Parts: sequence; structure tokens; C-alpha cells
Amino acid sequence: MSMHVDNGLTEWVAKIETRLQANPHDAEGWFALARDAQTRPVDQMRTFWERAVSHFPTHPYFWMLYIEQEIKASHFDEVEKLFSRCLHKIPSIELSRQHVRYVFSHYPPVSLPNRERIREAYDQAIGRVGFDLDSSSLYLDYIKFLRECEAVGAYAEQQRGLKIREVFQKAVSVPMLNIELMWKEYCHFEQGFQPNQAEKITSDRSREYTNAKKNARVLEPLVRALRRDKLPSPPRTLDEERQQIENWKKWVNFERVNPLLLDDNNKLMRRIAFAYENCLMCMPYRLDMWLETAAHYRDAAEKAQSKGDHVTAREVLDSAACCMERGIVLYPDRPLFYLIIADIEEFRKMNDRVKKIFERCLKKVTENPTLAYIHYMLFMRRAEGINAAREIFKRARTDPRITQEIYTASALMEYFTTKDKGVALRIFELVFKKHPINLSFVDKYLDFMMLQNEQINAKILVEKALNAESLAPSDKLVVAGKILEYDVLFGDYDTIQRTEKSRAELLDILQPPVTTSLTASRLVSRWNYMDLTPLTDNDLRNMDYLECRNPSSLAQPSPFDMFKNTRAATTSSGPKSGVVMPDLAAMLPFKPRPRNRGYLSVPGGDYAFPEALEHLKRQLPPPDSFAGPFPDLDQVIKLILEEQPKSAAELQKAADGIDPGLRTIAQIVNMADDAETDKIKLEFDPERRFVNDIYRSRLAKKMKVEGE
Amino acid sequence: MSMHVDNGLTEWVAKIETRLQANPHDAEGWFALARDAQTRPVDQMRTFWERAVSHFPTHPYFWMLYIEQEIKASHFDEVEKLFSRCLHKIPSIELSRQHVRYVFSHYPPVSLPNRERIREAYDQAIGRVGFDLDSSSLYLDYIKFLRECEAVGAYAEQQRGLKIREVFQKAVSVPMLNIELMWKEYCHFEQGFQPNQAEKITSDRSREYTNAKKNARVLEPLVRALRRDKLPSPPRTLDEERQQIENWKKWVNFERVNPLLLDDNNKLMRRIAFAYENCLMCMPYRLDMWLETAAHYRDAAEKAQSKGDHVTAREVLDSAACCMERGIVLYPDRPLFYLIIADIEEFRKMNDRVKKIFERCLKKVTENPTLAYIHYMLFMRRAEGINAAREIFKRARTDPRITQEIYTASALMEYFTTKDKGVALRIFELVFKKHPINLSFVDKYLDFMMLQNEQINAKILVEKALNAESLAPSDKLVVAGKILEYDVLFGDYDTIQRTEKSRAELLDILQPPVTTSLTASRLVSRWNYMDLTPLTDNDLRNMDYLECRNPSSLAQPSPFDMFKNTRAATTSSGPKSGVVMPDLAAMLPFKPRPRNRGYLSVPGGDYAFPEALEHLKRQLPPPDSFAGPFPDLDQVIKLILEEQPKSAAELQKAADGIDPGLRTIAQIVNMADDAETDKIKLEFDPERRFVNDIYRSRLAKKMKVEGE
Repeated sequence: MSMHVDNGLTEWVAKIETRLQANPHDAEGWFALARDAQTRPVDQMRTFWERAVSHFPTHPYFWMLYIEQEIKASHFDEVEKLFSRCLHKIPSIELSRQHVRYVFSHYPPVSLPNRERIREAYDQAIGRVGFDLDSSSLYLDYIKFLRECEAVGAYAEQQRGLKIREVFQKAVSVPMLNIELMWKEYCHFEQGFQPNQAEKITSDRSREYTNAKKNARVLEPLVRALRRDKLPSPPRTLDEERQQIENWKKWVNFERVNPLLLDDNNKLMRRIAFAYENCLMCMPYRLDMWLETAAHYRDAAEKAQSKGDHVTAREVLDSAACCMERGIVLYPDRPLFYLIIADIEEFRKMNDRVKKIFERCLKKVTENPTLAYIHYMLFMRRAEGINAAREIFKRARTDPRITQEIYTASALMEYFTTKDKGVALRIFELVFKKHPINLSFVDKYLDFMMLQNEQINAKILVEKALNAESLAPSDKLVVAGKILEYDVLFGDYDTIQRTEKSRAELLDILQPPVTTSLTASRLVSRWNYMDLTPLTDNDLRNMDYLECRNPSSLAQPSPFDMFKNTRAATTSSGPKSGVVMPDLAAMLPFKPRPRNRGYLSVPGGDYAFPEALEHLKRQLPPPDSFAGPFPDLDQVIKLILEEQPKSAAELQKAADGIDPGLRTIAQIVNMADDAETDKIKLEFDPERRFVNDIYRSRLAKKMKVEGE
Repeated sequence: MSMHVDNGLTEWVAKIETRLQANPHDAEGWFALARDAQTRPVDQMRTFWERAVSHFPTHPYFWMLYIEQEIKASHFDEVEKLFSRCLHKIPSIELSRQHVRYVFSHYPPVSLPNRERIREAYDQAIGRVGFDLDSSSLYLDYIKFLRECEAVGAYAEQQRGLKIREVFQKAVSVPMLNIELMWKEYCHFEQGFQPNQAEKITSDRSREYTNAKKNARVLEPLVRALRRDKLPSPPRTLDEERQQIENWKKWVNFERVNPLLLDDNNKLMRRIAFAYENCLMCMPYRLDMWLETAAHYRDAAEKAQSKGDHVTAREVLDSAACCMERGIVLYPDRPLFYLIIADIEEFRKMNDRVKKIFERCLKKVTENPTLAYIHYMLFMRRAEGINAAREIFKRARTDPRITQEIYTASALMEYFTTKDKGVALRIFELVFKKHPINLSFVDKYLDFMMLQNEQINAKILVEKALNAESLAPSDKLVVAGKILEYDVLFGDYDTIQRTEKSRAELLDILQPPVTTSLTASRLVSRWNYMDLTPLTDNDLRNMDYLECRNPSSLAQPSPFDMFKNTRAATTSSGPKSGVVMPDLAAMLPFKPRPRNRGYLSVPGGDYAFPEALEHLKRQLPPPDSFAGPFPDLDQVIKLILEEQPKSAAELQKAADGIDPGLRTIAQIVNMADDAETDKIKLEFDPERRFVNDIYRSRLAKKMKVEGE
């Protein structure tokens, strides 16, 4: 029997694994697997748990489940190792509380060293997540623990009291939920602790408290709008996701204006950083947030540096580097994170560390390490001079993966440093031996030659470029446009005519958009100089002018070709990626319709109803004619869930009798034969996950009362 | 009484003149004024007629009316002058026939010189418009005239016969309507003229005839799709207009493939040119067609030249120059047409003429003659050397209207010619004394300095640029991006950091689009080199990356900002013109609706009906319930036109009783109180203008019969 169940389970797990293979970010799948893993011995399931935490390294959810399993199995070594891997990286209040709970139960406060240990755990937790809106229970637990600590003698009692006061004072300065209660308890504590000074001490703190209370009210809707419990998924440009990012930015911006009027720059910086780190926890695939976080740390470090506060500067730079290291975990093959760390270390003048980072980067960036080599080379020039830089260039040239950009960088570096155009020209020439030339290379090389008065060589280069197979006709057009610019400045009439001829031939190859006359555009562009053009802007618009000396305008022949990514416009070389574009020419202008009963209104526009629903709608009587009875919807759904799923054959038979429109619904039912999955879905619906959380429901009730 | 009428008329004319002031291209207004002018003595109305023909210099309509008036008044000197002004510029068959008719009546064929004159007129007409699809009547008239010519003696008769044969043979080789009739008459003629050779001669011609006949069928729908009778109006990017331009291009492209299989290149070239010239007659405001025509002539001249046919080359170049001169009539202040003529003359090595053209251009181009000066200067360098060019530069500098581009052109010209970077640098520096610097100047100057290894001066230039009030923040960002490129190549770490700081400050000034993090974009762009970027293209798309070293991507912050004109993207300096953009974000994706009864389908989308129509629709019974009687619509309209217009007060009174929706219609009726104008409209409706043209109606009937 159990064998049978196991087999069934294995099969079910395999099914989910297939789902995850198709979409590794399928949260439902991960939840389901975790549920299964929780029922098994943790030492058999470590592979799975490691996979989960390395897939979601920034989010506490699976870390917490994993640790819980290890605690249950009393593998305390494993527990401590796991905590040390995630605790300082994830600003999650739940994770921190789990840690405190673990320390409390594993090192019960019966001995002084254990109590010390618990206190340390609490202090660290407050340092990590003490700014959180939901941190009041952490503070209260801490105070409760401190109060219960045995204190022998007046001195020890005094010390304990001072510690409790410290925690209270920290708590009442933080905008958090339940801060009013916290303040009441604090006042009560002061009255008991030092009755004669109580009033003075609390009134000293009241301004800070009032401020925190006021801010908590502003902060609460900001933080509540964030779905911190949602598992991270890669960007899909969904409206919901954009909304989330905007919400996160609202929080960050709220902190940035220093609403708590903090004098302590470091504390302000940490509060902003806390918002950023929270965002990275939930949306680690938003690269811009990583970069903003790094920029935030970097700015703070520079400010501290300029004030002579080298300790803070070092700490903050460490935080920045650490943040980038976490980015590397998710994106190990992107040069960006390594480059930013290198920049931080160069800022600290830790040249050896910079070199190490570059070496790590070269190992990890598998696809095209040219950019890493270039910046490594340029760093070496700054740090150790031109000879060290040349070594890197030499090394790069033996790497088969590099592209031609490094030759340009090296040639110009040599020219600027040694003022010797001969060396630069030789390096430029090397490209022809190894690489198919591209537009940006020709562009740089041509400028270089022209401004070195190497006009004959420039002509040879242009000939090569116009005959190169590696350049697209539009690229060649840009080259021809560039040489035309020089031709009119110093060439003779026949040279200009020859260039015009090749431009005409290149334009013939291009498919002209229907409304544009490329011949006319060429004739106009023949006479352009810099911003001047021989017709008015209006004339050009009326003739659908295309600037055919300029690559980007050619890359977008139709005025509707708008979804082009801005990057693609700058790199016109290389084949265009085959992104499928929506047919924007077929769009309709928006007009509000007061009653669009015929259409399904969803974000992004209103659409015709699906065929099956249309059919259903046609069968239904008009809404006015229905006056009841109204069934209990929850009951109906429950009944459907409890209903034994019919066999596929039965359903098919039933469906055959039905109209084609309705049959598709039957097929959908047929497909959803896995009642188990449905149940899991309901269970893990994040909106419902806190239904049984008494604290939250009490809180909600309280806010409702306050709001009234 | 007549006084009263005159006053009324004057008032009416004044009204129309006001309309024309508001819209000088109001064809109805011009028609109405012409109708009025036709009723008055021509010598009083010459001012008006001259205004009309100079407003529509390319179109025959007003020329023909004007000439007709002069003929009626027997001002034959004036007539001949007018013909000489327009006849050779306008490829209109009607105008040419008017000329022939005039010659025929003014020089009746009673004497030999007169007959000679008529023949000459016919020959010229055939030379001008003998390729026209509608030219058969011209040929037939000519032959009729030749037949009626008195020929005394066998020799004269023989000569006359040969001439008739020549005309016939020309006619049957041209794709025209009624070519079958022409062929029949030609065969009949040959039989009468030289019966024994007739069969051989006609069969020699039959291949040409068959070809022409076949092509006439293809050409007919192409030409019929063109509205050659419509008065030209400036481009308004209407669908109809685009359609017309496409139709014209279809004709041109039809001719281009040489469907008549002509061996005579010159004849082929002239046929293509005839299509182009026809297009310019009707759509003279399409600048691209002027340019294409010029390019066509130019290509033909070069082909003839390369074959050693210098006569044809000269003729064709004359045609090209003449074409551009006609363009100048319409666009006297645009440098383009002068520049193209200058290019033609330079091609012919007529340097004196080039200079004259440039001088004319400098006089006429009032707004900004810099481009003309630049090309004049560069031409002088080619033609007479650097000293002559310097003279032009010197002259340009005394002109208060010039802009800074000429300094850059002159500096680079000096550098390339004399290889002396000192002179170039001094010229570049002159700009600072006289002009607020712009981005493209800084761009060129910076490149020049860097590649001359003037690195300290380059830094000073960048400082100036970053502090210049004449540069927008986005321009300064481009400058900062450019200097960053140099900084990484040869600067030290602190220099890079300083540049990054100014980039960050500039980005703070810019309004970031909601979804883009400018900080993140800046951090990424810090590490870009040429086409390389430290993230994947996908990453960049997901973070809404903006290339902040590149001006054009900053100019278009939103992906929906697509109606930007391509020219605007290249000239990012200078204030943006305040073009009102449609709100594209509010567009709906297209979905076909099989029965969109609720909407008005027009090209461009379907729209809600106007409020008044909606009201009317709601009042109407369903269409099924109406079974007649059906009124004769023409009768109804006639009745409405004949109805005495009610006074405004009466109508208003009637309207007050009606629903607001309908009242607007009453107001419209109220506004159209000028029944006269309505009648004019009907009379000049181009669709109806040929109702009484028996030839056309016969033709239409014939085509119908053939089609069956």
C-alpha cells in the first residue's frame, strides 16, 4: 500500500518537475514540491532544498522551510550553517525571528552564556530588520526576554533596566505598527524603573515618538502595497510587476526625503538601504534596483569619506560590494557586477583586489569577455602604466572569444598615451587579419585616419568597408555618408560624384518604405552639413524624409516601428534579433465607450469575449429577468472541488452532446483532472495565507476601528 | 440697379478674398473668383489673373482661362506672351490644343507661311504632349489639317503624303486611347497613298502598333487613376493624397521598365520624364517628386555623356536645370533647388554659372544662408583653390544671419587642405566670440582636439560646454558621455569619477520616465564601449534601459513617442518644435468586428457616430419596417436647392422646438446661407465637369461594350 502511494507520489513529483523544466519560475510547482519534501526526512531531501534556495537565494520562503526541517530533525550543525548562509543577506523579519526562536530553544536561557547568546541574537536581529514596519513583536519579545532574565543584585538589575530602556528607546523611534502600545509600555516601564526621572526621560523621547507614529501611518499603506511574500520571478513586463516596482520606488523615495528628520546620516542611509534590500529580496531580477542600491551605497560612502568618516565609508563600501556579490549569484555571467565591484575596489585603491575581481570575471563571463578585457586593460594602464596594459591586450588577443572593440580601445589608448599614431594605426590594422569588420570599428578608424590626415589610407579603408561582406547595406550607407562628409570638405568633384553613386546603389538595395522616396532623401542629404539642411523641417516631414547618412533613422523605416529597443538602435551592426512586433498599424485610436457591454474590459483595452463565453451569453436570459435564488458561491466551489472527477471518456461523451462553444469548457475541465494541484493552489493562494494569522486579523480589525 | 449689383458683387468678392486669405489654397474660392473675373473686361482683371497663374504656375487651368479671356478681347500680343510663358512648362494636352486652335484661327491656313506656322504649332504640340494617353484627337486634328492643305503638283502632294505618313506612324506607336481607329485610318491612308507598297509598310509598323495597343490597355487605368484636373494644394498627408502620389509613382514605374521595348534611350527617357512632368503639374508641392525628376534627368545625362552623346546630355541637363528653375518659382527661399542647379553646372564645368547660381541663392535665401555659403566656399576650393574659398568664408562672416556650422566646415577644410592644425583651431575658437555654441559644434571640435592630442584644451572645451547656457541638459549629457569615452582611455580614476558625477547631476535635471531608472542606466552606460555593453540586450530591455550617452534615445523617452520626425532626432540641439502628439498610449489593439453597426467605418478606424446622427438613428424605425415609397434623390436635392433660404431667425425659431441633437443640423443649414456658393460647387465638381463631354461619354460607353 505504502509502496503504491510512494509510486503515485513519485509520479506526481515527476509531473511537477516537468512543469518546472518548462518554466523554472513556476511558483506553484515549487510550493507543491516543498510540500512533498516537508513530509520526508530532510537528509534525503537536501538536494531538493539546496536547489530551491539556490533558485530563490534572495527570498526567505524556502530558506525558512529548509531550516525548519533541519531543526525538526535536530541537525543543529546544519541549522547553524544554513543561518550563516542566509541570515545576513535577507532582510526578512520572519527569518530573523525564526533565528531568535532557534537560539532561544537550542540555548535555553538557563545559563549566563546562553542568555548572552540570546541577547546577541536579538541585537543582531534588530540591527538587521529593526527598521521594519512589522518589527514591534521582535522588540516586544526581546523586552519580555530581558525582563524574565534573572538579575542578582542591584547593579545587575540596574544594568538590565538600562538595557530594557535602550531597546524601548530604539523601538519607539521606529515607525512601526502598534507603536502606540509600545510607547504606553515604555512609559509604564520608566515609571517602574526610575519613577522620579520618568517624566523627564519620556518627554525627552516624545518628539521622536510622535514623529515615528506620524510616519508609521504614512509608511503603512506604502509597505502594505508591496507583496513581500510573493516569490521572485523574472521580469515579464506585466502591469502588476511595473506597479510593484513603482510601489517599491515610492518606499525608497519616502525614505530618501528623511521624513524622520534624522540627524544621523548613517542611520538615514541604513533606512534607505533597508528599503532597497527589501526590494532586492522580492524583485531580484530587476537589474535596475541592484544598480540603484549599489549607487546608493556608493554615494553614502563618498559622503562619509569626504567627512573623514573612514570607518563608515569602509563599512558602506563593504555593503555595496556584498550587494554586488549577491547579484553575481543570480547573474554570474554578466560583466556588470564584477565591473562595479572593481570600481569600488579601485576607489579604495585596493589594486590587488581589482585584479582578482577582473580575473574572476574573465573566468565566469563565458560568452564575450571583450568588455572585461578592455576595462582590465584600461585599469592596468591607470594602476601600473602602459606596459602592464599592453600585457592584458596581448593576453586578450590569444583569447578566441574576443571581438574587435578591444583593438580600437587599445589603439586609441596607445595614441593618447604615447602620442604615436604609427602604433595606433598598426593596432587598427590587426583587426582585418582576425575579424570581420563592423560599422563601429570603421567609424572610429575612419575618424582617426581623417583627423591624422591619412587621407589616402582612409580612402582604402572606405573601399574595404564598402566591399566587406560583414557590413549590411545600411551600415555601408553610413560609411558612405561619412566619407561624403569628408569628400565635400577636401575632395574634388569627381570624388563626390563617385561617393554619391555608391550611395545611390546602396539605397537601391534597401527596400524603400512605400511613402518615402529614397532618391529624394539622398539628394537632400547630399547637401546637409551638421544640423543644416537645404529644406525646412516641414518640407522634410511632408516628403517623408529619411536621413540616409544616419543609421538610426534607417533602422526605423516606418513611423510605426516603435517597439524597437533603444539599444538596438545604437548597435546597428550584427544581425537584428527576430523580435515579433505587434501590428501597430492596425491599432484603433482610443475612444471611451460609456457602456461597453459587448466587450471584456481588461487592462490594456477591451476585447471581444472568448467564443465559448459569447455562446453562453447568447443562451442566458436578460439580467432583469433573474430575481433569485442566489446560491452561496463558496458552497458551490466547495462542491465542485469535492466532486469525484469524472473519467475523460465520460466527460467527452457528455461534451459530444453539447454545442461546440460549450465543448471547449468541457475540455478545460477534462484537462484539470488533478484535484490535488487545485487544492494546493487554494492553500498557497498568498491572499489567503494569512487567514489564520490572528495577529494580522486583530491588526486589521484595529485599523478599521481607528479609521472610523 | 447695376450699381447695386456691382456693390453686391464686390461684397461677395471681398468675402471670398477673406476666405482665400485664411486658406490661399482654397480651390473653390479661386474658381469663384475666376467665374467673376470671366464676366469682366480682361484688361481690368489682369492683376487677378496674374495672381492666379502665379499661385498655380504648374497647372494649366487658370492659364487657359486667362488666355481665353485675352483671345476673346483680341489682345493677341498678350496671348502670345502668355503662351510663351506657360506652354513649354506645362505638359497639358488641353493647353497645347488651345494653342493650336489659337494659331489656326489667328493665322488661318490661307497662305503658305500661315500653314507653315500651324504645322510648326502642331509639331511642337506633339513634341510636348504627343506621348499622352489622350493625344489621339491632337494627331487626328493634325492629319485632318494636313489633308486639307492645298497641294499643287505631284511633288507637293507626295511631300504632303509623306508628312501625313510621318504623323500617322508617330501616332500608332504611342499607347493612346482610340489607337485602333488610328490604325484603321492609317491603313486606309496607305492604301490610298501608295497602294502597291501599302501592305508591306503597314505590316512593318504592325509590331509597334500591337505593342502600343497592348500598353494602352495597361496604361489607361493607371492614368485614369490620376486626378490631373485637380488644382494643386500643399501636402496635408491625407490618405487621398498619398494614394495619388502612389498612383503617379505607378505610372513612372510603368514607364521605367520600358514596356514599349524602345531601342531609343532618348525616347524612353522622354516618356519617363513626361510622366514626371505630369506629376509636377498636378502635385508641385511634393518636393520628393521634383528631386526624383531632377535625378532622372541627371542619370539620363550621365548615361548619354558616357556614350559620347554630348548633344543629348546637354539637352537633358538643360531640362533638369529648367525643372529646378520651376521649383525655385514655388520655393524661392529653399537652398536645395539652387544647390542642385549649381551641381548640374559644376558637372558641365560651367564655373561662372555656378557662381551666379550661388549668388542668386544668397540673395533669395533670407532665413539662414549658412548652408549656401558653406557649399559656395567648398565649390570655390574645388574650382579655384583655398584662397578663393577663404574669400567666401570672409564674406560669410560679415553676414549677420550665418550660424556656426560654417566655422566647423572652414576649420576642417583648412586642416585637410593645409594640414595645419593651428589654423583650424583658431577658426574653431572664433565661434565662441560670436555664437552660442551648440551640440554638433562641440562634438566636432572635441573629436578634432582629442585626435590632435590637444587633451588639456579638450578638457577646457568640455568645461565650457558643460557650463554653456546654450546647451540643453540632454546635450550636455552627450558631451559628458563623449568625454567619458576619452577619460576611460587615457584619464586617471579621479577624472572618470568627476565625469560620472557631472553625468549624474545632469541626469537628475532630466525628468526620468516613470519606468526607467536613470541611475541604473548611467551605471550601465559607464561601462559601455562601442557596441559592447556589460549586460545582455534582454537585461537592458527588461530594465527599460536608456542609452544616456546617446542623444537620440534620450530624445525619445517613451517607447510610444514614435511620431517624432526623423530629422528632429538628428538635430537634438535647438528648441523642439511644439508638435502636438496624439495620445498613442490610449490606442486599442485592432480587432476585426464582423458587424460593427454601432460605428462609423472610415479609413483610419471606426468611430462613434456624431451625436446628431446618433439621435436621428434612435428616432428611426428599424430598416426592415420600411418598404417604400423611395423618393428620387436628385429631385429632393434639386428641391432643396431651389427652396428660398429661410431667414436665420425663422430657422432659429424652428430649431428651438427641436431636440439639441437635431438643432446642430439646423445651425449648419443656417450657416450655408449662400446658395450661390453651393451652385458654384456643383458646377465645378470635378466629377461632374465632363458630364457634357460627348467624347468621354462615348469612350465610356465603348469601354463598357468592349468589357462585356
